[in-house]
Amino acid sequence: MTGTAAGVLARAAALGEVSEEPGRLTRRFATAALRRAGELVAAWMEAAGMEARRDAAGNVVGRYAAAGGDAGPPLVLGSHLDTVPDAGRFDGVLGVLVAVAAVERLAERGERLPFPVEVAAFADEEGVRYGVAYLGSAAYAGLFEPEWLDLVDQDGISAAAALRGLGDDPSALLRAAVPRLAGYLEVHIEQGPVLERADLPVAVVTAIAGQSRVAVVLRGQAGHAGTLPMTGRRDALAAAAAAVLTVERVAGATEGLVATVGTLVVGPGAPNVVPGEARLTLDVRHADDGVRLDALRALRDEIGRDAASRGVDLDWAVLQETDAVAMSPELRERLGAAVEAGGHAVRRLVSGAGHDAAVLARVCPAAMLFVRCAGGVSHDPRESVAEEDVAVALDVVERFLRTS
Amino acid sequence: MTGTAAGVLARAAALGEVSEEPGRLTRRFATAALRRAGELVAAWMEAAGMEARRDAAGNVVGRYAAAGGDAGPPLVLGSHLDTVPDAGRFDGVLGVLVAVAAVERLAERGERLPFPVEVAAFADEEGVRYGVAYLGSAAYAGLFEPEWLDLVDQDGISAAAALRGLGDDPSALLRAAVPRLAGYLEVHIEQGPVLERADLPVAVVTAIAGQSRVAVVLRGQAGHAGTLPMTGRRDALAAAAAAVLTVERVAGATEGLVATVGTLVVGPGAPNVVPGEARLTLDVRHADDGVRLDALRALRDEIGRDAASRGVDLDWAVLQETDAVAMSPELRERLGAAVEAGGHAVRRLVSGAGHDAAVLARVCPAAMLFVRCAGGVSHDPRESVAEEDVAVALDVVERFLRTS
Repeated sequence: MTGTAAGVLARAAALGEVSEEPGRLTRRFATAALRRAGELVAAWMEAAGMEARRDAAGNVVGRYAAAGGDAGPPLVLGSHLDTVPDAGRFDGVLGVLVAVAAVERLAERGERLPFPVEVAAFADEEGVRYGVAYLGSAAYAGLFEPEWLDLVDQDGISAAAALRGLGDDPSALLRAAVPRLAGYLEVHIEQGPVLERADLPVAVVTAIAGQSRVAVVLRGQAGHAGTLPMTGRRDALAAAAAAVLTVERVAGATEGLVATVGTLVVGPGAPNVVPGEARLTLDVRHADDGVRLDALRALRDEIGRDAASRGVDLDWAVLQETDAVAMSPELRERLGAAVEAGGHAVRRLVSGAGHDAAVLARVCPAAMLFVRCAGGVSHDPRESVAEEDVAVALDVVERFLRTS
Repeated sequence: MTGTAAGVLARAAALGEVSEEPGRLTRRFATAALRRAGELVAAWMEAAGMEARRDAAGNVVGRYAAAGGDAGPPLVLGSHLDTVPDAGRFDGVLGVLVAVAAVERLAERGERLPFPVEVAAFADEEGVRYGVAYLGSAAYAGLFEPEWLDLVDQDGISAAAALRGLGDDPSALLRAAVPRLAGYLEVHIEQGPVLERADLPVAVVTAIAGQSRVAVVLRGQAGHAGTLPMTGRRDALAAAAAAVLTVERVAGATEGLVATVGTLVVGPGAPNVVPGEARLTLDVRHADDGVRLDALRALRDEIGRDAASRGVDLDWAVLQETDAVAMSPELRERLGAAVEAGGHAVRRLVSGAGHDAAVLARVCPAAMLFVRCAGGVSHDPRESVAEEDVAVALDVVERFLRTS
């Protein structure tokens, strides 16, 4: 079973049982559950001939020595072990387990590569516990920010205290240098429906989309639903509704743009009161930062004009701007060749979600391989991948390693 | 000061201090505050030569005897003394105090009319405490339903227990017969902006609008805001936004129709998740029940068609249907003549809000006079009426009584 897709699925099932809560899978940064998951993974690494270590952030890293001794920068395969609350079994975990299985294949044949291989199982990508994502991969890449240790979770426990509670030394994170790495490859479920629609097992990621997040407040005038004529109303929800449809239309007309109003809260919020206020959030993503920022300006202008025509004031606060991260052209090329060599068409995809690869790309060439997941469902217990697709991903990673 | 607009405003200010809570005006059915307000009003009634009584619902009724002794059905002037939480001083109270002042004018001149006049200060119109409106006027009109006594408030206190706590006998409410009444006239603030826009002090109400209330649920498919392309989304909020704008457009195109989406709740409701569900309420009102029901059918059809085109399911549950109540043509005519005699244009208005007159119309001819209120603001401490407008209303009521 080692070095096979079936083995990967069996291990994903085992990790799926390692949770903070009974009955559902939740595994946040710096928890005992995350530590137990790391211990399982470390044991599998050791069994595959790797030397496993655990760093002060709780990242578990296995190292498979190079053919000519253990010199030179390693090629890193990895993903994360933390999850969202009530998670599925594959987001993050799949990439870690495919990486372990790929090394197992080398080890079974006693094969060494001209460079060391590291398999990294990161301790935080989702950012659920402290509101900042990538605490794990940032620590691995020597990019951990001192102020992150002072962040507190919903129970008032700081990140530093949580790490110390597991016996780790948080100050070590601040001393870590940026490592020399030959490259980074991450396998991850797509978390979207594109591969399923295209009937393909895997895709090569070209970039991780940049993202803007905006808090929009529309302020009109509340009034009695029965006594305020339609003429002269300053209905904040009507202005918000127009904004939602403007977002939908502009995104639909811009190739590759996704834009979402995910929350909308109406005030005062009674069936017989004309809404005086509407608060909504806007999430806009694109692989090209210029396209994203142009779209955002267009949205602000059009939503503002429409609101003004209704006597509704617009407040537009940009909460977050994250630039797009391009994947390494050379690694993408090699990854595409490895896909093609398996007899599959090379589909190229932009990742709309963030990934550890966005952090690693700051310190080395990085690439990602997406694996089809059922219905595009993720962050949900129904997350599912097919064994055949995992087998394709495993073959692609093996070929990628051989041609590196 | 008696029999004057200034006196009415002074008494409204005094009643504005009689509250269940310190610092803001809240006076619900069957509370000690409501009882104290009724005692104040009863004293003013007695001072104006009326015989005041209090019924088992807490209604306070003053009777001013007819010229030829006290026979025949009375003409009733009235409104309510209960309020919404954090209320203004005029909703309900204005009608009671103008009625008392009109009788004061008769009494000051020792004048009796050919019929008795009753001034009714109802104990519940808002329905805040028990969720059913008009408990007071229904009791006065002999229409109190036995099951209302079993309703419980948010503290678990039944209406029967609350009344007994004030020393009243709830069973008396069920024995009350429908009284013989010559007619009912209610003065009330407009609670809307029409008179202010038209620069007129008062209006004659033609009808109390019928009302439909609908709970609408739109169900699509939630998904990741970054990984789900715009094509193929089943965004429940986009469908809800289209519904809000359809409601606005259909109401704007139908003379006299008001339609409001006052609440909208989005699920799952996260900035980075495409909404899978949206729940909204729809409130539709018109003086003509046929127009209202036609509009409702058109809205359901169009909203359903649009939702279906987005792969979103529509659930449409009618929670409430209240028929329109026409005011008495004869009383409207006399009321209009009394307005005209004061030198004011006769503006005719549909009431979009419900009033005690809707209950009294079931047992006698009923009419209403609206008084301009600042900014159309109501159910708010900023509720305000001008002394000159109160003077006009008082003159109109006096003329109306003389011509009855």
